[in-house]
Amino acid sequence: MTISLGELAIQFGCELVGDPSVEVSKASTLGGADAKSISFFSNSAYREQLRNTRAAAVILRAGDAASCPVSALVDPNPYLLYARIASLLHPAPAFQPGIHPGAVVASTSRVSVTAQIAAAVVIGNNCEIGDAAIIGPGCIVGDDCVIGAGSRLVARVTLVQNVNIGARCVIHPGAVIGCDGFGNAMSQDGWVKVPQLGGVVIGDDVEIGANTTVDRGAIEDTVIGNGVRIDNLVQIAHNVRIGEHTAMAAMSGISGSTVIGKRCLFGGQSGTVGHLTICDDVIITGRAMITKDISKPGSYAGSFPAEESSTWKRRVARIRRLDSMAERLSAIEKRVDKQ
Amino acid sequence: MTISLGELAIQFGCELVGDPSVEVSKASTLGGADAKSISFFSNSAYREQLRNTRAAAVILRAGDAASCPVSALVDPNPYLLYARIASLLHPAPAFQPGIHPGAVVASTSRVSVTAQIAAAVVIGNNCEIGDAAIIGPGCIVGDDCVIGAGSRLVARVTLVQNVNIGARCVIHPGAVIGCDGFGNAMSQDGWVKVPQLGGVVIGDDVEIGANTTVDRGAIEDTVIGNGVRIDNLVQIAHNVRIGEHTAMAAMSGISGSTVIGKRCLFGGQSGTVGHLTICDDVIITGRAMITKDISKPGSYAGSFPAEESSTWKRRVARIRRLDSMAERLSAIEKRVDKQ
Amino acid sequence: MTISLGELAIQFGCELVGDPSVEVSKASTLGGADAKSISFFSNSAYREQLRNTRAAAVILRAGDAASCPVSALVDPNPYLLYARIASLLHPAPAFQPGIHPGAVVASTSRVSVTAQIAAAVVIGNNCEIGDAAIIGPGCIVGDDCVIGAGSRLVARVTLVQNVNIGARCVIHPGAVIGCDGFGNAMSQDGWVKVPQLGGVVIGDDVEIGANTTVDRGAIEDTVIGNGVRIDNLVQIAHNVRIGEHTAMAAMSGISGSTVIGKRCLFGGQSGTVGHLTICDDVIITGRAMITKDISKPGSYAGSFPAEESSTWKRRVARIRRLDSMAERLSAIEKRVDKQ
Repeated sequence: MTISLGELAIQFGCELVGDPSVEVSKASTLGGADAKSISFFSNSAYREQLRNTRAAAVILRAGDAASCPVSALVDPNPYLLYARIASLLHPAPAFQPGIHPGAVVASTSRVSVTAQIAAAVVIGNNCEIGDAAIIGPGCIVGDDCVIGAGSRLVARVTLVQNVNIGARCVIHPGAVIGCDGFGNAMSQDGWVKVPQLGGVVIGDDVEIGANTTVDRGAIEDTVIGNGVRIDNLVQIAHNVRIGEHTAMAAMSGISGSTVIGKRCLFGGQSGTVGHLTICDDVIITGRAMITKDISKPGSYAGSFPAEESSTWKRRVARIRRLDSMAERLSAIEKRVDKQ
Repeated sequence: MTISLGELAIQFGCELVGDPSVEVSKASTLGGADAKSISFFSNSAYREQLRNTRAAAVILRAGDAASCPVSALVDPNPYLLYARIASLLHPAPAFQPGIHPGAVVASTSRVSVTAQIAAAVVIGNNCEIGDAAIIGPGCIVGDDCVIGAGSRLVARVTLVQNVNIGARCVIHPGAVIGCDGFGNAMSQDGWVKVPQLGGVVIGDDVEIGANTTVDRGAIEDTVIGNGVRIDNLVQIAHNVRIGEHTAMAAMSGISGSTVIGKRCLFGGQSGTVGHLTICDDVIITGRAMITKDISKPGSYAGSFPAEESSTWKRRVARIRRLDSMAERLSAIEKRVDKQ
Repeated sequence: MTISLGELAIQFGCELVGDPSVEVSKASTLGGADAKSISFFSNSAYREQLRNTRAAAVILRAGDAASCPVSALVDPNPYLLYARIASLLHPAPAFQPGIHPGAVVASTSRVSVTAQIAAAVVIGNNCEIGDAAIIGPGCIVGDDCVIGAGSRLVARVTLVQNVNIGARCVIHPGAVIGCDGFGNAMSQDGWVKVPQLGGVVIGDDVEIGANTTVDRGAIEDTVIGNGVRIDNLVQIAHNVRIGEHTAMAAMSGISGSTVIGKRCLFGGQSGTVGHLTICDDVIITGRAMITKDISKPGSYAGSFPAEESSTWKRRVARIRRLDSMAERLSAIEKRVDKQ
């Protein structure tokens, strides 16, 4: 679609510096923009690109307008305004309600007439697929699942069993939700499987990334709150509870029965041991491993940045000699004490 | 199903404290239990919940019976007994033998008449699917695979080629078994693929988690022993051999040609470099990276617990000044020596 | 196939030590070889196996010929020569051009008559499938994708949308390419999805491992250069650009907008934060986390090798006492200064 800067300023309640009649039809990077583009500037590393942009307009903060050679939409949160304008310019493709003839849907399941069930989908017993929900190609929906209105399983998602997904969620390809948790009891003859009996309850407006796994609860449910965002290749173990609007970057791993608060941020490749409680508003930086409860909002870290290998090897050797250094320090303290 | 405490005590050979005629029909948590529930207590962190439980009965150790307000089944290993009783109360759903009309099975493959092949399954050439095996919806079974009696591919599992799975295994959705290992030889023109020619041999009673990958051997086979338990998102590289009853938590990664003993435990996000030998009865704690052979049973660790970011930054700075501290320590030693 | 050592020496331009009329028909390990086998020796850890091999011939370096009890093909890069000879002896299985009747291909897509589309494949709109391309069973190809000549999607691969794959690529099962990047802007009401509008461009001769995820660009494309090799369970975030012939071992994770040079090597479970630039010819060792730009070729490391847990706990405690040690060292320096 095409829209004028004036209309955008009115619709989104932001200030316009420039010609309200100029029209834009697409989102672009500062560097890749042309006369039909709207772009955004929020990271000062790209100021040189701002200065040289050929966009029709740039979304930016008031303080940056002076660096902008073209029209500007001024907003205190340019990235958020960009997200909204880009969604307007690039709406999700329309979809065709109906069940593809190649899909297999159990007769005990109910599918809204406004939902779309694509090719190569298999839906088990006692499921409910809500209004305007999209079950993309290759998805497997096991027994006793509910998919709320407007939610989308992009493609090849697996809901194993007893998964309840709220409204307006997006689940990306390869995600597996409701798989058995890792419950094993050791006997004299080896591991005995602990049956996994719970389900997964996912709130509204949740997004779950590609090839992420979310285990069903061992007895009760694994719970993911409203507005949670989970990236690719994340592991959520059984009985985990994640508070609203928490976000987890790729490859983070949450061990069983951990309870996570609201609005937390987990960096990539971070992790927690099991049975922890983490309060609201906690930031776990990339690669950090949480081993204890966290009851104080704030930022937590624990990974060492890489260095040249020769430097790093020397550090490891130094760390290994810390006992010896401590002994030498004590010895010298004693000798000086005696003097 | 419903069963009395008296029958449970007899069937599982445990002591009953309480009324043998009381009946239970489901497993519950201590906190979520009602008069039809059996629960278990094995982690003292939940003692308060034990004291307040409304379960019909609790499985626990003899020493904990005094804290239990209801009937008790007394056993030295409550979690194991719970696993067995929960399996009795919540049996796996019955399955329908037969091949779904939407499945594609090559004429050169043999499927037991008691096996179930679900919708959207594709089975290649020269495969054997054993008695009472379940191939869930969306599974791909490549050429030359064998699936033993009673094994279950839950859904959307891929066996790429030449994978031999024993009896009573469970493979969870998204797992890929028998994919090519990462073999590349550098030439003047770039990488040349080293053909991956081996297969994967999996013993009996093995469980493999969702979205886990197990590479086929480069020449000979990758081997996973009887009773091994592998969690979600684990990588097992080519030529790895894993001994019986070893268990690996989510996101652990085993590099190529590593040989792992029996009854080892790998914590989440742990890893090994390649070509190692790890003996029986080794515990690798979460996030540890094994870089050398291990020939002594015991516990191995190597990750740093996260702390508040400001504290952690100071530690990193301190570690980076260790060379300087060591020099200062030597200097002060020399000065004191001279005095 | 069967071929004589003499023919191999001529075809691959290497020196033969032994009888040119001896024939081989398969690749084997040194230990598993028989009279029809060709094997290779490039890692001195296996010298004892070389001495005892029953192979017909071994590919090795000139300096190792004296340890070889059988015929030898002598080459400065035995592993590369092995890769080529093994590919000759074990060619990829022939495939059947044509579209399986169970596949669903949109009428707006073009499929070469020499391509193979297997069962349970779904191909969306406006795609082009090149000559001799193989789309294995269960693959989902979304709208606007191009798959070049001779490329192979092994099975159950998902190309979400707007993915352009060059010639002779291999994509392994479970890989998801073109999924949305993790773009979220925080509003007062929670996260707002930033629409992901770009695609993925993959060069020629690229290999991507099982269950790996490659996000589409946020606005422009994610780009993977010619000859890149990516192992299993790797995450490539949006807008990443990877230079030619770079290789990444399993479970490595590249954050958004990072630009990686040519011929880099990433060890297993390594990672980068976002928006970095890494120059050509950089080696990132296993588990290293890159937090800054790298402009100097070489090797970078940052992970601590595991040790016995008791030893490691002592090291952690020592590190936590480094502030105190530093203070004690300063104190003792001052005291000695005063003497």
